[in-house]
Amino acid sequence: MTRISILGSTGSIGRSTLSVAESYPERFQIVALAAGANLETAFEQARRWRPQMLSIASESDADILRARLKQAGISGIEVVHGTRGTVSVATHPQSDFVVSAIVGVAGLEATYEAVRAGKTVGIANKECLVAAGELITAEARRQGKPLLPIDSEHNAVHQCLRGGRMEEVERVWLTASGGPFLNTPRSEFKNITVEQALNHPTWKMGKRITIDSATLMNKGFEVIEACRLFHVAPSKVQVLVHPQSTIHSMVEFVDGSILAQFSVTDMRLPILYALTYPERIQSDMRFDVGNLRHLDFQQPDMNKFPCLRLAYEAAEAGGTKTVVLNAADEVAVAAFLEGAIRFNEIPGIIEEALAASNSGMLRSIAEVLEADGAARRYAQKRIREKSKKSAEPRATSVG
Amino acid sequence: MTRISILGSTGSIGRSTLSVAESYPERFQIVALAAGANLETAFEQARRWRPQMLSIASESDADILRARLKQAGISGIEVVHGTRGTVSVATHPQSDFVVSAIVGVAGLEATYEAVRAGKTVGIANKECLVAAGELITAEARRQGKPLLPIDSEHNAVHQCLRGGRMEEVERVWLTASGGPFLNTPRSEFKNITVEQALNHPTWKMGKRITIDSATLMNKGFEVIEACRLFHVAPSKVQVLVHPQSTIHSMVEFVDGSILAQFSVTDMRLPILYALTYPERIQSDMRFDVGNLRHLDFQQPDMNKFPCLRLAYEAAEAGGTKTVVLNAADEVAVAAFLEGAIRFNEIPGIIEEALAASNSGMLRSIAEVLEADGAARRYAQKRIREKSKKSAEPRATSVG
Repeated sequence: MTRISILGSTGSIGRSTLSVAESYPERFQIVALAAGANLETAFEQARRWRPQMLSIASESDADILRARLKQAGISGIEVVHGTRGTVSVATHPQSDFVVSAIVGVAGLEATYEAVRAGKTVGIANKECLVAAGELITAEARRQGKPLLPIDSEHNAVHQCLRGGRMEEVERVWLTASGGPFLNTPRSEFKNITVEQALNHPTWKMGKRITIDSATLMNKGFEVIEACRLFHVAPSKVQVLVHPQSTIHSMVEFVDGSILAQFSVTDMRLPILYALTYPERIQSDMRFDVGNLRHLDFQQPDMNKFPCLRLAYEAAEAGGTKTVVLNAADEVAVAAFLEGAIRFNEIPGIIEEALAASNSGMLRSIAEVLEADGAARRYAQKRIREKSKKSAEPRATSVG
Repeated sequence: MTRISILGSTGSIGRSTLSVAESYPERFQIVALAAGANLETAFEQARRWRPQMLSIASESDADILRARLKQAGISGIEVVHGTRGTVSVATHPQSDFVVSAIVGVAGLEATYEAVRAGKTVGIANKECLVAAGELITAEARRQGKPLLPIDSEHNAVHQCLRGGRMEEVERVWLTASGGPFLNTPRSEFKNITVEQALNHPTWKMGKRITIDSATLMNKGFEVIEACRLFHVAPSKVQVLVHPQSTIHSMVEFVDGSILAQFSVTDMRLPILYALTYPERIQSDMRFDVGNLRHLDFQQPDMNKFPCLRLAYEAAEAGGTKTVVLNAADEVAVAAFLEGAIRFNEIPGIIEEALAASNSGMLRSIAEVLEADGAARRYAQKRIREKSKKSAEPRATSVG
């Protein structure tokens, strides 16, 4: 019986994890859940799963939850709140496996504490590896516990790596759908609308990650994640565009053998893999191999997608730079979604923020969060300055 | 240092093995070589590699070799001959790894004795697994030593299997180029010439295996080999046509994950893999992953290629049936190459031989060889009867 805590239980990965747990009641037990602001879903999850602990973002929501649980006649669930609540869920003494699926830097501290507490951690939070990957993976090594990737690419790499030893790895090949603008000429990038950018060809995801997929920044983050998770240099992590997204990723070994992993595009599969590793258990998520027909590949164009190049540069520098990359990208994407900047201006904002930041290693999650805040403020300032500037001539032409 | 005996040193796999050994002199030592009738190459190999033992097919060739080695001032090589000589090479006390690469049933006894002597065996001889797979794999299990496949498909499967445990395997997927007649209508099969059938799209190989690739019997043999090597039922081994032959094979696990292996099409790679397993060492056999463009797949057509169906039936029955399958096929292919039967008559000969044979398990290599001989005689008789019959009306029409 694997006893699970979920950080981000009401999000997509959190709900998929509960769906997996539901399919194997004899195998998984839900010990603690940490939700955000989605009070209704948190209540429903508490009612269905009867965890020992439930955390919610705000204190007032925690009060409401306690009252509703009492009213429903449900006892024995300790309701906590805020960052301290999330950390309590992450380090719950009854849990042995923590699913880290809180989106954004909000999940950093709890994930780090879960690793410090010696839990096996399944990682779906990108920021944990992009912004704090060096800290978190070093701590996991110290604890001698695995960090198991819960996203299709790194999970695929993890599976392929079983075909050899780490020192036998020549390269890691991350596949990329290429996003909706794979075949759009670069000259048209300035006219890309929010609607067009939100239309991802293969995966249905949140808004930010969808835009990050369109700029290939998401693939850049994945390069950094791969470097941190598997302790390989950025030059050993390559991206290959594969529009069907059938093959999730590959590992090339020193002898010249390449292993590739594929499966249905269902997040429950990497979740199940992580929860049962090193075992595999029967699932109904079957890829119809007999009906496989065509797989296409091409090289990524870093000139057309400068975010990918920026990610490689940040990965090489490490420390503050990957924190800045993530923070500035989040701000730039938000600005694009709000109409404050154009699609083709996203990379410039990030590049400026990277250039303006100091390099250096970060020794704690607090330092990561500090660097993150500074980068966000810088990016926001630059965006305000840019939109002011671009607003001026428009005002002139109108007046 | 791995000390190697090669059974079939002057053949294609044997020479590739020596080429691998040449690239890593610090790692591999050639202890003993068994050649067939190629006296000149055997002498050159003895001069270059100075093995402790050299076996050649005939006694008279052994005498010539001894004289020539003496003349060349080379001492310390024990020259032996015949089946007993091959067995001595296979069981040489100084060798720990035996490459089994003698084509045909001639390699059976020596390979079996190598396994019995507790050697790690790299297997490239199809007959060892098709005709005597049950005996040889049972003995390897008893010895607790691995049987490492040296052909691209099973080597790929072996690599993919590292991603899980045997009981976690849902299916083994063998890829097939489909041969030169993949897109030829079945109605034209009767007019296929020897020249057309010998023109394999991706691999350059011997005549029999090239014809076996054209009929898909070679893939059928590989299904049987996979069943024996990996102890899986025939229903768990599937064939997928993949004309580029880039992906060498795949393994589908119970959780729905599929691992695939690919590499350059160079036999030195599976040889190196087998010789160094469980390690991998650096090679210059690089597949240019970045330039991967298209991979195509389709289902095999068992009506068009009945040999594949016959192989599945023989695999299910086991014992004598797979011996007959191999023996009758070899006879039928030889008859086709000599112009005695048409391409589309090959499966019929094999099917008749299978129907005429007894089923039953075989308890020794001697029993395998006996069943093999009986099947050959039966197939030859049927071919003589057929060509007589087909010759009669022709004689009538001429006269």
